[in-house]
Amino acid sequence: MCHACVMDRVKQGMLSRRHLFTGAAALGAASVASGLISARPALAQSSGRVVDLTHAYDETFPTFDGVPGITKEWAVKFEESGYQLWKLTIFEHTGTHIDAPLHFSADGASVDELEPQQLMAPLCVLDITAKAAQDPNATVEPEDIEAWVSANGDIPAGACVAMHSGWAAKLGTPEFRGTPDGALAFPGFSKAATDMLAGLNVASIAVDTLSLDPGNSQDFAVHFSWLPGGRFGIECVAGLDQLPAAGATVFIGAPKHTGGTGGPARVMAVV
Amino acid sequence: MCHACVMDRVKQGMLSRRHLFTGAAALGAASVASGLISARPALAQSSGRVVDLTHAYDETFPTFDGVPGITKEWAVKFEESGYQLWKLTIFEHTGTHIDAPLHFSADGASVDELEPQQLMAPLCVLDITAKAAQDPNATVEPEDIEAWVSANGDIPAGACVAMHSGWAAKLGTPEFRGTPDGALAFPGFSKAATDMLAGLNVASIAVDTLSLDPGNSQDFAVHFSWLPGGRFGIECVAGLDQLPAAGATVFIGAPKHTGGTGGPARVMAVV
Repeated sequence: MCHACVMDRVKQGMLSRRHLFTGAAALGAASVASGLISARPALAQSSGRVVDLTHAYDETFPTFDGVPGITKEWAVKFEESGYQLWKLTIFEHTGTHIDAPLHFSADGASVDELEPQQLMAPLCVLDITAKAAQDPNATVEPEDIEAWVSANGDIPAGACVAMHSGWAAKLGTPEFRGTPDGALAFPGFSKAATDMLAGLNVASIAVDTLSLDPGNSQDFAVHFSWLPGGRFGIECVAGLDQLPAAGATVFIGAPKHTGGTGGPARVMAVV
Repeated sequence: MCHACVMDRVKQGMLSRRHLFTGAAALGAASVASGLISARPALAQSSGRVVDLTHAYDETFPTFDGVPGITKEWAVKFEESGYQLWKLTIFEHTGTHIDAPLHFSADGASVDELEPQQLMAPLCVLDITAKAAQDPNATVEPEDIEAWVSANGDIPAGACVAMHSGWAAKLGTPEFRGTPDGALAFPGFSKAATDMLAGLNVASIAVDTLSLDPGNSQDFAVHFSWLPGGRFGIECVAGLDQLPAAGATVFIGAPKHTGGTGGPARVMAVV
């Protein structure tokens, strides 16, 4: 069954989610390879407008565990040497950053091993701002993916699928991390949604919050399935409100230190 | 005098280098802004092939001062917690990395302040492998730029101009840093060449060696002019041998820690 057939049946609501997953998974490696081809139309249609999807970050940037994610001290001072540079101490999962498969698996791909072809991808933006405004732990569900497909057509193999919850606008307020009583609370993906995306050979998911899973997750079901499955995630992205739902191409500037489980990244989109 | 006029005169060999600089500088801000427009044709013509211009790096990666540029220790261990992440210590100018204006000026733009539109740019590759094979301290000279223009046409405003010296292939050997007696020796840009590029409103330069200046530089003339001039550099790039002289678009994934003088970057080209 071809990719178009699978997605047509999604659009028509004729296929259960389980069937969708099974059918799309049968596409196998050929579909992954076709991710490159899928990216071409988006580039060809580009106006050249660059949208930065990366937050600037320092020691005050919120982190999942509450510990400052970066500190810096001068290694060379300008007034002494005529040039200057910092020595940085960075916990990998800080700022706008990558979760590589190795983050949640003993032997998955490290951040330097991510396939470069997957770092330039069609970007699909799922807007869940309405329900996130009602529930800080709102999740992307299969219905959101189906609605996106109905409105925009196929999710290309190799795509990056981003959750736009509106959370980036909360940066600098306590609400970015959670509730006034200190509980983590922010939107994320549901495992049912990421299982569907895995079946469609999506290469990566992105969130504008601190975690792929919602803040109230107890089991980190997305982290424990998506990442060991050989796919990667991007957390704390910015600027999704400046992008169309479909048609942008994302450049994912993942760091390339060997053996890394992820790390701060520069992420930009071209529209 | 319009940009095309300037470059026509370069092609015709009718213009001294000083006149070229003066004339092109008069273009001012309008030409910088047009860098965005210049990038469009390259994207539109893209086949979608991604070429990674970034070296993977660890504590053994050569650095200018010989001190390991990155070290890492586990912050969370997989066998104890079911997930894992590293605490990294990084000297900013390590691996494939950015030199921001702030690196060589007291108050220049920091790496997080680089203009996003300049991080996606037409890439011009100057091949000096022949003379670098004869002289490890070979430099890009104005003649190399003129030859490139004669063969390929205008250098677009906002472009990234890269020196391809063949040095990336020496990584892992002592020759990447210098001579057997310990002296630094590798190719770089001459100040005359970067003055010309500044006059053409080039946004960034890149080298496949440890420094924008050649290894035997005593005055760091390129660092001390190009960077305080509000432009940036990229050092230790890989993969230039896989690119055409003209026609590729480079995505410069600069890090975005606030106040940084530069830092490890993910650099990729689309052909």
